[in-house]
Amino acid sequence: MPSEFDLIRRFFSRPTHHTELAGGDDGALIQPGNDQQLVVSSDMLVEGVHFFADVPPFDLGWKTLAVNVSDLAAMGALPRWATLALALPRADEEWLHDFARGFYACADTFGVDLVGGDTTRGPLNLCVTIFGELPHGTAIRRDGARIGDEIWITGQPGRAALGLAALQGRLALPAPLRGTCIAALQRPQPRVAAGLALRDIATAMLDVSDGLIGDLRHILQRSQVGARLEGSALPWPTTTRDSGLPPEHIHRALLHGGDDYELLFTAPSAQHQSVAELAHTLNLPLHCIGVITPQQHGLSINGFALDSNALGYDHFR
Amino acid sequence: MPSEFDLIRRFFSRPTHHTELAGGDDGALIQPGNDQQLVVSSDMLVEGVHFFADVPPFDLGWKTLAVNVSDLAAMGALPRWATLALALPRADEEWLHDFARGFYACADTFGVDLVGGDTTRGPLNLCVTIFGELPHGTAIRRDGARIGDEIWITGQPGRAALGLAALQGRLALPAPLRGTCIAALQRPQPRVAAGLALRDIATAMLDVSDGLIGDLRHILQRSQVGARLEGSALPWPTTTRDSGLPPEHIHRALLHGGDDYELLFTAPSAQHQSVAELAHTLNLPLHCIGVITPQQHGLSINGFALDSNALGYDHFR
Repeated sequence: MPSEFDLIRRFFSRPTHHTELAGGDDGALIQPGNDQQLVVSSDMLVEGVHFFADVPPFDLGWKTLAVNVSDLAAMGALPRWATLALALPRADEEWLHDFARGFYACADTFGVDLVGGDTTRGPLNLCVTIFGELPHGTAIRRDGARIGDEIWITGQPGRAALGLAALQGRLALPAPLRGTCIAALQRPQPRVAAGLALRDIATAMLDVSDGLIGDLRHILQRSQVGARLEGSALPWPTTTRDSGLPPEHIHRALLHGGDDYELLFTAPSAQHQSVAELAHTLNLPLHCIGVITPQQHGLSINGFALDSNALGYDHFR
Repeated sequence: MPSEFDLIRRFFSRPTHHTELAGGDDGALIQPGNDQQLVVSSDMLVEGVHFFADVPPFDLGWKTLAVNVSDLAAMGALPRWATLALALPRADEEWLHDFARGFYACADTFGVDLVGGDTTRGPLNLCVTIFGELPHGTAIRRDGARIGDEIWITGQPGRAALGLAALQGRLALPAPLRGTCIAALQRPQPRVAAGLALRDIATAMLDVSDGLIGDLRHILQRSQVGARLEGSALPWPTTTRDSGLPPEHIHRALLHGGDDYELLFTAPSAQHQSVAELAHTLNLPLHCIGVITPQQHGLSINGFALDSNALGYDHFR
């Protein structure tokens, strides 16, 4: 069996692009730009909780990094460096080869240097810590939403949840839609360009990993505001319109499905035109789905209050 | 059962000291000093591989951070920030309470802000990424050892291995030694002060996690040099002298035992007096155990070549 050091050298030692020292020492050496702030985020993915044992390793490699890239996108930061720690039940070289290819495909797409990490035996577990840069004071946090701000969502959330239901055999999807939805689940596309473009526009932002409603609540809690959503303005997936799917499936996927990693953000209504133009520049649908209200109004959709049980996915429930 | 967000809020939300934003958002915001380089390192600890299921959770919390702090010490860096991702089979509040106490005890001792992380269900797995700072160009890497440099080790390596053997019932240790050795295993003391003090003195350095010989080989490989060790100069644990332990046990623990997190470093012989004086300043034994030789001389002890099988612990062997 190859040694731990062999594994790292063979599969995770590619040249870096903006790193003084990566791998082979006690730590990596990086040099943030002067007056730049660092944004740091960690995500841990566990087999049987976040992915199935039979997920294609290329896709898993992509997603392991992509969900972290998405966290930086959600702050308006530029992804720069990452570490990868992985526990593996065995040194399966073919699996590792494909996993590494997927990981680096995402790293290359978003300009991320893999600078270090750890490899150990254990139940399959993937932990990435990512760090990116932004000019001091430009981070788009969750606590900046103000009454009257419009609420926006990128892309078409809900597809990953439909893909998951299809993979689990709970839902029959017609062929082209099935592929789109499974791709949304397994190869999410972090909205980095949108995050950067929204730096001087958005007042609050996050990426939807636990469901639109559940994650919107995080913005509302942190910003101490309420929200009124317009059902007709929500991005009901057009591709599902003629799919014969029960509407309640689509409804649930759109409002409560996680794992799409779309950006949910608020912006002053005076910026409406700027945001609409961004959709063209970025070639990315941006939907205005509601408005921020005083906190005591709570969260409602079409005038109906959403009770606090309509939460997103929680790993310990 | 408490939710994921409850767990984070209850056990891992203490005030930070030098962090703009920690927790509750998509990422943490930190501000490295101008002209400082960042040192980054990750370590993953898995139950059954790195620790026993019945290890006291306080000690596990301490060690989870301490092994990462030690990586920064080994670069001569000042530890500053860390993220913690943990997979837990269940939300055992008493266990988490004690684990968090141990983690923060170490964080407080070494001035580390916990700035973020992740909590999920899964087989017990603890992954820390740590960030530290040092002035540009002052990192003590593994590749700087030069022929003629002296080889030094801090403290008394081998005690953690004896402690492990005692815990596993493979070795009977007399009472005071048993406690000392188990403490060395479960509450290692990262040599941060020594690492900082050695910045302008050491030419190469690492922390001994896989065994003195195995880790020395990393310096030799990276620096492309050989080494001659003097057996009589090695820090044979004085406390074991009258313990009645078979000498081969002590010998193996000293040369091949991991997990003590002592610093192994090289320094020009002209710095011998400076290093010796540091031992007083730091109140820490520093032993000069050998000298760096040309690469073709390989690694020898008392003139005997050590074959390449005398390696440290490897997770996939």
